[in-house]
Amino acid sequence: MVTREQASLIVHGQDRIGIVAAVGSVLAAHGANIVSLDQYSDNPHGGAFFQRTVFSLDNLKAVLPEIRDDLGARLSEGFALDFTLRDMSVRKRVAIFASKSHHCLLDLLWRHRGGELPISVSMVVSNHADLAEEVRGFGIPFFHVPSAGPDKSAAEAEHLRLLQGNVDFVVLARYMQILSGDFIARLGVPIINIHHSFLPAFIGAAPYAKAKERGVKLIGATAHYVTEDLDQGPIIEQDVVRATHADTAADLQRRGADVERLVLSRAVQWHSEDRVIRDGNHTIVFT
Amino acid sequence: MVTREQASLIVHGQDRIGIVAAVGSVLAAHGANIVSLDQYSDNPHGGAFFQRTVFSLDNLKAVLPEIRDDLGARLSEGFALDFTLRDMSVRKRVAIFASKSHHCLLDLLWRHRGGELPISVSMVVSNHADLAEEVRGFGIPFFHVPSAGPDKSAAEAEHLRLLQGNVDFVVLARYMQILSGDFIARLGVPIINIHHSFLPAFIGAAPYAKAKERGVKLIGATAHYVTEDLDQGPIIEQDVVRATHADTAADLQRRGADVERLVLSRAVQWHSEDRVIRDGNHTIVFT
Amino acid sequence: MVTREQASLIVHGQDRIGIVAAVGSVLAAHGANIVSLDQYSDNPHGGAFFQRTVFSLDNLKAVLPEIRDDLGARLSEGFALDFTLRDMSVRKRVAIFASKSHHCLLDLLWRHRGGELPISVSMVVSNHADLAEEVRGFGIPFFHVPSAGPDKSAAEAEHLRLLQGNVDFVVLARYMQILSGDFIARLGVPIINIHHSFLPAFIGAAPYAKAKERGVKLIGATAHYVTEDLDQGPIIEQDVVRATHADTAADLQRRGADVERLVLSRAVQWHSEDRVIRDGNHTIVFT
Amino acid sequence: MVTREQASLIVHGQDRIGIVAAVGSVLAAHGANIVSLDQYSDNPHGGAFFQRTVFSLDNLKAVLPEIRDDLGARLSEGFALDFTLRDMSVRKRVAIFASKSHHCLLDLLWRHRGGELPISVSMVVSNHADLAEEVRGFGIPFFHVPSAGPDKSAAEAEHLRLLQGNVDFVVLARYMQILSGDFIARLGVPIINIHHSFLPAFIGAAPYAKAKERGVKLIGATAHYVTEDLDQGPIIEQDVVRATHADTAADLQRRGADVERLVLSRAVQWHSEDRVIRDGNHTIVFT
Repeated sequence: MVTREQASLIVHGQDRIGIVAAVGSVLAAHGANIVSLDQYSDNPHGGAFFQRTVFSLDNLKAVLPEIRDDLGARLSEGFALDFTLRDMSVRKRVAIFASKSHHCLLDLLWRHRGGELPISVSMVVSNHADLAEEVRGFGIPFFHVPSAGPDKSAAEAEHLRLLQGNVDFVVLARYMQILSGDFIARLGVPIINIHHSFLPAFIGAAPYAKAKERGVKLIGATAHYVTEDLDQGPIIEQDVVRATHADTAADLQRRGADVERLVLSRAVQWHSEDRVIRDGNHTIVFT
Repeated sequence: MVTREQASLIVHGQDRIGIVAAVGSVLAAHGANIVSLDQYSDNPHGGAFFQRTVFSLDNLKAVLPEIRDDLGARLSEGFALDFTLRDMSVRKRVAIFASKSHHCLLDLLWRHRGGELPISVSMVVSNHADLAEEVRGFGIPFFHVPSAGPDKSAAEAEHLRLLQGNVDFVVLARYMQILSGDFIARLGVPIINIHHSFLPAFIGAAPYAKAKERGVKLIGATAHYVTEDLDQGPIIEQDVVRATHADTAADLQRRGADVERLVLSRAVQWHSEDRVIRDGNHTIVFT
Repeated sequence: MVTREQASLIVHGQDRIGIVAAVGSVLAAHGANIVSLDQYSDNPHGGAFFQRTVFSLDNLKAVLPEIRDDLGARLSEGFALDFTLRDMSVRKRVAIFASKSHHCLLDLLWRHRGGELPISVSMVVSNHADLAEEVRGFGIPFFHVPSAGPDKSAAEAEHLRLLQGNVDFVVLARYMQILSGDFIARLGVPIINIHHSFLPAFIGAAPYAKAKERGVKLIGATAHYVTEDLDQGPIIEQDVVRATHADTAADLQRRGADVERLVLSRAVQWHSEDRVIRDGNHTIVFT
Repeated sequence: MVTREQASLIVHGQDRIGIVAAVGSVLAAHGANIVSLDQYSDNPHGGAFFQRTVFSLDNLKAVLPEIRDDLGARLSEGFALDFTLRDMSVRKRVAIFASKSHHCLLDLLWRHRGGELPISVSMVVSNHADLAEEVRGFGIPFFHVPSAGPDKSAAEAEHLRLLQGNVDFVVLARYMQILSGDFIARLGVPIINIHHSFLPAFIGAAPYAKAKERGVKLIGATAHYVTEDLDQGPIIEQDVVRATHADTAADLQRRGADVERLVLSRAVQWHSEDRVIRDGNHTIVFT
């Protein structure tokens, strides 16, 4: 079987009659076959409109610029819409930031090696040198950028040198360091963080200790986009696991680690496949 | 706010380039606004295609026949597709069959009364008279049709008299009687059953006793369309709950009852909202 | 088969060597057979000790006072322990408080009628008269105690008149009114509340609206003992259900209602069976 | 803090009055502090009795033989009970069998390295050489024992040579080969298998393909002890994950792999901590 190439098209803007027809017509005119289409409007009477379309087409790379031009022309006729068109055979490039805790990092590298994640891991960056050998064993560059002390400016400058132009998004795999608003703005690509609690419960440091203190009966993990406000960015995915009175904070941490890995890997996969659309502090996730 | 009326459109057939555009164009030409669109193809290269579209339109009832005509015309041009168009303000009429066990029945009546289920409950039919008063307290007709003994033909004849022309689907809410293939064929409307196990485990009678015997650590429930083959019909929804060695078969039954109620109510809701498409012995469920 | 009677024994205090042997010896000396025994120590080196024992014994009622005396004597020898001994054939008496939202109330009444909950429902109290007929249909007294306005003293005085001496615990089944610290102290029996969020997320009013606003991907419910601090009391049970971007606040409320019912019914069952031990702001739950 | 040593005691036999007191008295007489006690009787009137007790004691190794003698003497006085006493500081030795699919194997090795599993991994055995380097990177011996063809006798003889005397249990981490009844009997230690379905659904080969064919809405995994009857042994743990019509058999396999890893790691942990008691074709699991 000849596998045809696939592209993703995200359309986002003000809902209006005829969007689906307009997009469908442009794609059909180029002989593109729609493989998957998800659509969401937060209010059918003039709300915000979101559509993810995946289509397949022979000779995709050659035709994509024409489709982009035609969509641009067609969607400027009376619509207030933005769109993003992407060749899905080109993997998104990612840098993974980690600290000493390595379960999320290794889980991603492992899934990547097993072909689960359509990403290209450009580098791993850590404020500790411990994981260098393990990471390089996967054939992936490892950079140690120390980040001790309150002044992170030198570390962030080094991060920007490494990242700029080289990555399409960044994953904080239990990086445990706060990024400055200036850094986030200058980096200019999405950053996904895994927080080890069911947000908005237990914002900030030591959530498992807080969960033990509060006596919750479930513990969770949350993958979200990073914004300047700590642990407040748009949530991509969450999950939980059961806990009991007999679990120590260390037990919660151990069980929670399994949830963190699953939640982060789903968020990375969905982001890589253009399934997540940011809408203010919310996400639309077409799974 | 004026709530506009909504219709559902199911399109089902052979995948081909241009279906989304064709459907979208007909709807846009009538000023219909697409509220929700889900699409699935089991093989992008000429497989089976399934699309559910919900659209809103002022004066829907008057325009629906024209839209139907236009869709019929447009989709006959080079496509091999069937479609079903339905005014969603018209609730599907349902008969609920129950036996002595009443948790699933009462849960449906309760949700219906609370406005959760977009159905019209035409009647409740039971082989026992016990629930007559309770059901009639909901303002719903109750018919007692005894069904003892191996020969179900008299009961089935009575069932057909009650149901034919009066219902759009039937729900077996722990009815515990086997329906003959002849009855199913003559009835001619979909029948949804709740089976008290995670099918295909524990087909047939007494699944909780079998679950206890096998020592499973989860018990489940399955909502499926009824076919001539017992417990073999297309699955709509399933869920499970945790069990332990300390649970007796009676405990499993009690816990399982909560899962049965949830699973059946989801299946009834999804069927009522045209979210379930049958495809051979499978279902496509757009939730 | 002769069903022998069962009693529960909760022992709680400072961990020390020999507690299990001491308790076991007293019970064995009376011919009591231990049916179930759960034990927990929050620190094996001198921490707090918790033990729940259920035993069966013929002629239990006659012998219970002697067992109580013997336990009192035995556990005063070098142990720092409290104990509670209870004849489990005597059902705990409960008052259920409800407001307009009735899903949690009806679910409890329904399970009670079906024999699932070992409680005696003494009365239902509501600040609205709407549910009077439905509740009385279950054969249970209904009292309407209006509670409008900021001053709750008249309502609370009426509540105390109804409850004192008549109930062993109170369940707030979506009662939606804040109880004063004075009322809680004067009532003197445990109060179980169901909060419609995964605490400590979304404390206070309108948690589903807050959940929608924050964009969480799971919504939850929490059953907890009521203390003077709103939504801060010891948690008994929690559970969650999945949500998506497409769920409105009303959808979250509808789905959440199913979780609220399950979580509250589990908490009421466990409390009724002496499975929950309060320990400061925590609970030990032996399930 | 001085960490005292811990031992586990499993008592198993016919229920009778006084077991808890008898065991507790022997332990107390030696100054042992009970850290955790779980008890289960399948019928309080003369059924089978199961108790797991963990106790701590200074100088445990020296005193354990005396405790064993005293328990033996005390439990022979009118009881029909077996018991097993084990020093928990001595890790159980395990051999892990794997085939080409390595997610379960690597997950176990990873957790083991992270200190999650109280086991000593004596060796990894595989019918393929592919994983040799990866396994040896963990510092664990790897043995390649080819097993092609219907006659497994040479492979099984080699397995016995490697295992006998060297391991306390065996884990089949997606080994995908059937073991003969003769081998199981001669090996004489427990064997834990992970089956990639929610047993008893989809026994035998290719369960994910069968799950796709049947159209189930959840897929699962089952850890069980191996008996001569394929996929029929006592179940230790099960879990599931949601699936949809859009999942291919390959998608199910990918998602299922996450469940397999979790379920197998729980089973291995519980077995290592003496939390699982076999009772005919059932397990008692004290978690």
